[in-house]
Amino acid sequence: MTTRRRFLAGSMALVGMALLDRAAAAPDVQSRSSTETAPPLWLASGQPYRPVVTLNGWTLPPRLRDGVKEYHLVAEKVRREFAPGMTVNCWGYNGSTPGPTLEAVEGDRVRIYVTNRLPEHTTIHWHGIRLPNGMDGVGGLTQPHIAPGETYVYEFLLQRSGTFMYHPHSDDVLQVAMGMMGLFIVHPKNPRERPVDRDFCFLLHNWDIEAGTATPKPTTMTEFNLWTFNSRVFPAIDPLVARKGDRVRVRIGNLSMHDHPIHLHGYDVQVTGTDGGWVPKSAQFPEVTVNVPVGAMRVFEFTADAPGDWPLHCHKLHHTMGPMGHNMPNMLGVPHADIARKIGQLVEGYMAMGETGMAEMQAMQMELPENTLPMMAGEGPYGPLEMGGMFTLLKVREGLARDDYRDPGWYRHPPETLARKV
Amino acid sequence: MTTRRRFLAGSMALVGMALLDRAAAAPDVQSRSSTETAPPLWLASGQPYRPVVTLNGWTLPPRLRDGVKEYHLVAEKVRREFAPGMTVNCWGYNGSTPGPTLEAVEGDRVRIYVTNRLPEHTTIHWHGIRLPNGMDGVGGLTQPHIAPGETYVYEFLLQRSGTFMYHPHSDDVLQVAMGMMGLFIVHPKNPRERPVDRDFCFLLHNWDIEAGTATPKPTTMTEFNLWTFNSRVFPAIDPLVARKGDRVRVRIGNLSMHDHPIHLHGYDVQVTGTDGGWVPKSAQFPEVTVNVPVGAMRVFEFTADAPGDWPLHCHKLHHTMGPMGHNMPNMLGVPHADIARKIGQLVEGYMAMGETGMAEMQAMQMELPENTLPMMAGEGPYGPLEMGGMFTLLKVREGLARDDYRDPGWYRHPPETLARKV
Amino acid sequence: MTTRRRFLAGSMALVGMALLDRAAAAPDVQSRSSTETAPPLWLASGQPYRPVVTLNGWTLPPRLRDGVKEYHLVAEKVRREFAPGMTVNCWGYNGSTPGPTLEAVEGDRVRIYVTNRLPEHTTIHWHGIRLPNGMDGVGGLTQPHIAPGETYVYEFLLQRSGTFMYHPHSDDVLQVAMGMMGLFIVHPKNPRERPVDRDFCFLLHNWDIEAGTATPKPTTMTEFNLWTFNSRVFPAIDPLVARKGDRVRVRIGNLSMHDHPIHLHGYDVQVTGTDGGWVPKSAQFPEVTVNVPVGAMRVFEFTADAPGDWPLHCHKLHHTMGPMGHNMPNMLGVPHADIARKIGQLVEGYMAMGETGMAEMQAMQMELPENTLPMMAGEGPYGPLEMGGMFTLLKVREGLARDDYRDPGWYRHPPETLARKV
Repeated sequence: MTTRRRFLAGSMALVGMALLDRAAAAPDVQSRSSTETAPPLWLASGQPYRPVVTLNGWTLPPRLRDGVKEYHLVAEKVRREFAPGMTVNCWGYNGSTPGPTLEAVEGDRVRIYVTNRLPEHTTIHWHGIRLPNGMDGVGGLTQPHIAPGETYVYEFLLQRSGTFMYHPHSDDVLQVAMGMMGLFIVHPKNPRERPVDRDFCFLLHNWDIEAGTATPKPTTMTEFNLWTFNSRVFPAIDPLVARKGDRVRVRIGNLSMHDHPIHLHGYDVQVTGTDGGWVPKSAQFPEVTVNVPVGAMRVFEFTADAPGDWPLHCHKLHHTMGPMGHNMPNMLGVPHADIARKIGQLVEGYMAMGETGMAEMQAMQMELPENTLPMMAGEGPYGPLEMGGMFTLLKVREGLARDDYRDPGWYRHPPETLARKV
Repeated sequence: MTTRRRFLAGSMALVGMALLDRAAAAPDVQSRSSTETAPPLWLASGQPYRPVVTLNGWTLPPRLRDGVKEYHLVAEKVRREFAPGMTVNCWGYNGSTPGPTLEAVEGDRVRIYVTNRLPEHTTIHWHGIRLPNGMDGVGGLTQPHIAPGETYVYEFLLQRSGTFMYHPHSDDVLQVAMGMMGLFIVHPKNPRERPVDRDFCFLLHNWDIEAGTATPKPTTMTEFNLWTFNSRVFPAIDPLVARKGDRVRVRIGNLSMHDHPIHLHGYDVQVTGTDGGWVPKSAQFPEVTVNVPVGAMRVFEFTADAPGDWPLHCHKLHHTMGPMGHNMPNMLGVPHADIARKIGQLVEGYMAMGETGMAEMQAMQMELPENTLPMMAGEGPYGPLEMGGMFTLLKVREGLARDDYRDPGWYRHPPETLARKV
Repeated sequence: MTTRRRFLAGSMALVGMALLDRAAAAPDVQSRSSTETAPPLWLASGQPYRPVVTLNGWTLPPRLRDGVKEYHLVAEKVRREFAPGMTVNCWGYNGSTPGPTLEAVEGDRVRIYVTNRLPEHTTIHWHGIRLPNGMDGVGGLTQPHIAPGETYVYEFLLQRSGTFMYHPHSDDVLQVAMGMMGLFIVHPKNPRERPVDRDFCFLLHNWDIEAGTATPKPTTMTEFNLWTFNSRVFPAIDPLVARKGDRVRVRIGNLSMHDHPIHLHGYDVQVTGTDGGWVPKSAQFPEVTVNVPVGAMRVFEFTADAPGDWPLHCHKLHHTMGPMGHNMPNMLGVPHADIARKIGQLVEGYMAMGETGMAEMQAMQMELPENTLPMMAGEGPYGPLEMGGMFTLLKVREGLARDDYRDPGWYRHPPETLARKV
């Protein structure tokens, strides 16, 4: 191993000057650690498309040079607030996990500088994009791994519009588990192709973070305890807001270890795209739960004709909860107040599962370990929502102006709920 | 918390009279705890559709008042026999889990009274049905939770035919885990639209019930030990019986935590519907294993042209077994009769996994803990079937009269097996 | 039980002569334990189809007698090298797991002799094939189980072309978990129907084999530690090799307990078939990740227009790793060199998870328990690949002759990699 390391160090020295040049040529690094949903990115130079809204995320503005769109991604440690009360030691890009969304247009040539500020090597694979083999980003196979401190440059032509992802292909179990992922949206060249009024996107992920700690455990394979949309959990995931009558597109990618059946209340939708391209009309069919397989994307569309607050959530019900003790003894139907009281005298903060159910958990507002979220949370106009994890709302409102989609505040403070008891 | 509870109690008192009125106006409660498949419900008033058969379940007859179909669902504790030898403490509706199937027609207005006899609050969400936001049944968001003792009324117009579900949206991890779920079938207004001769439906579920106990553990997330069709396990699941030449529809919903690939022997089928609606012809394709995602429904159809006894089962093979010791030491290929004999002298009822395989398990008929099913069961005409869990038979028979579909006994005692060794 | 056994022994004696006759009439047993990909089987008698390539497997040559294609499968214990350094005690057919691929043509009559050399009874179910009920292979239901030493004969007409499987339907949890499975390809009668230039097939499986042991644990339900294509793991899975411009078909079946999203780099593909038949053009849509449900098959096609080395792998990232300690303490970001050194003095071969990530694992080349594979392996032209499990390469090359598909050596030694850093 020593020999090998020395050899690598030598070859690195040889290309050292080239690396410095690359980093120097790259666009300035733009970084953002805010968890607020950024407004859609309208370029000053104009663009033939309506930009996407990345839930609790942002789009990285490109630099245009010699007809090439240039981006600079920095792989680095980031701290992400999953919800107020819990901040996680993640890895990501440019200050956030997911990294910033990249948006470009079919036919664009893109050049992406990737600087590695992680403690180990990395690469980026451009999931779903057709490109020359040498640009595929598979460490060891199509390129050397990018060593810490190094900057690597990818360049390719975007042959097709669609919904793609980027993530490492170096030590990828660990690096993806830590939050390294991002969306890559390629808009059609023809602005009249597949137009929508609102276009939302986010990535699904899972995490195993022991109560009271802040670092995900990358070796967990099936039993996770936190389930996120863009590395956020309910009630801290921003809503998807639309005007009544809008055509809405939602693009969802999954880099977790489980598939997630994403259920929308109040509507039926059509899957119109995958990370492989667009689904022809003849192959579309109505669904209310779109199952997003692991390592895949699903794009669905609908017309927002029903006003109201409509849940959008994973239908694996444990994925709509905060962390819970899955090994608690089963006290359902067992009167145990006296037992619980006795244990409580011995063990500080002891919680026994409810005798009548778990709903009382949210009401009780127990003390939790540091940096740990409750099992159930969220207050609605009519009481507790008893949710967590992969849960947010589609808010459809009437009577708003066409410019709403450009208004950053609008996502965070939409008009009041319309849900009313009849 | 005390303050909060007192506040709630106060607001409950204010609406108390209204609640009493509601309960009084509701149709009489119809309850059924039998696990026998009820015959299809033909209304005395006539109906423009062939009713469904709910496997080991039943359809709740509506009351027609002022042109509205009225139903009364009671959320309550129920005891369900999963198979002879095992009865489980569940939660359900009107005496059973799943609750009774609701059947109505596209264009109907329905009014559903929901009385809560559980020890904690609940609501009902009408999964897949398009309705006003206030009728969506999301506790805290679109309505107050229904407190124990309260009756709540839902009312909406059925805009589309299709295959839907109902389940709680209050403490839903626990309440669904305990068995609260039901089917909601909306038939097309036009009786010539999508006609079939036989129409079967059931719901998939998973349970974690420790050997020797009777109460499901609602916190389990992935490692369950019982897998059911309509809260029944093989060999206690009724068969699907059809005449040769019948057009058959099967509607399956999944409220478990795993997707279930439902495999039918002897036929290829087409998925013709989801909980979002009907699949157009152009999007259909042949399958022998229909994967039903969590929180979703799949409707498939075929023509019963091949007589015989054809298994219909989940193809995740552990889901076609009874409870088993997943942490048993691996004795395969290890001669251990002597060891087993010695342990057996120390531990009563000790079972070591087979040295030659597990088939001997069924033959051995070991003693089991109380209220616990064997790992493998079922006798066929040619010997042991070595199955359990999500497994039943499609029985296709020749020469039966058209009225078979109305005969309650016919489902339980179809003509003898046709399977013959050639 | 004694009574039952004696009864069975008696009935066996009665049919003993018939069994001897059957075994005598069967074609000679052809067996193969090599893990090298056999060249496609071109019959001396000619055939109206291009044969398939079974990755690291082979096709069983039929015997033609009186217009019937006859095969002889022997269920037996086999030892399978998953990769150099690890050999597993499996069960399979004719010396291998998966068993040999069967290939025939739509309209063929096939007769399959099955001899049981296992220590327990078995049967074979012909998954996806339409046949008389008595030929369905369900032990106890459609035939007696085949006792050890017995030979059973199946015979049926192949009504449809397609992609099918065979596996036991006796004690199937255990027998499939041990590796009993095989592919059954039925080619269209018309050679101009659905032609491709290359046709690859393999089966997905999971295994739980404790470090240092060689026998799979058949009771494991979700947490496996080895994930295979045709009972092989990376880097010991042969590549899929194609010429630039070839039309390529890949057929994948899944007999594991998890669905596997199979991701192909550099291409988008169309699913053109399932184990139920062919998908009509109108229902096809582009994908880069084809999710293969459990107990199902997916056939996809693409035109190999992009030269290079393109990964083909499961996108559940833990499935592209060798066995790993999923219960290791999480040392990420925790300086622990000193602790590790101290533990190392006490425990020989102790490994702590990386402080900077897991990439160093491959470089370290730690000592492993006997018969145990590393967590990450594989060397590419640019360094370590850090992969394992369900990972191989599609190698697309230019300038080869049309005869490549007949050349056995070509699969193992394709021309050098084309991947080049731009």
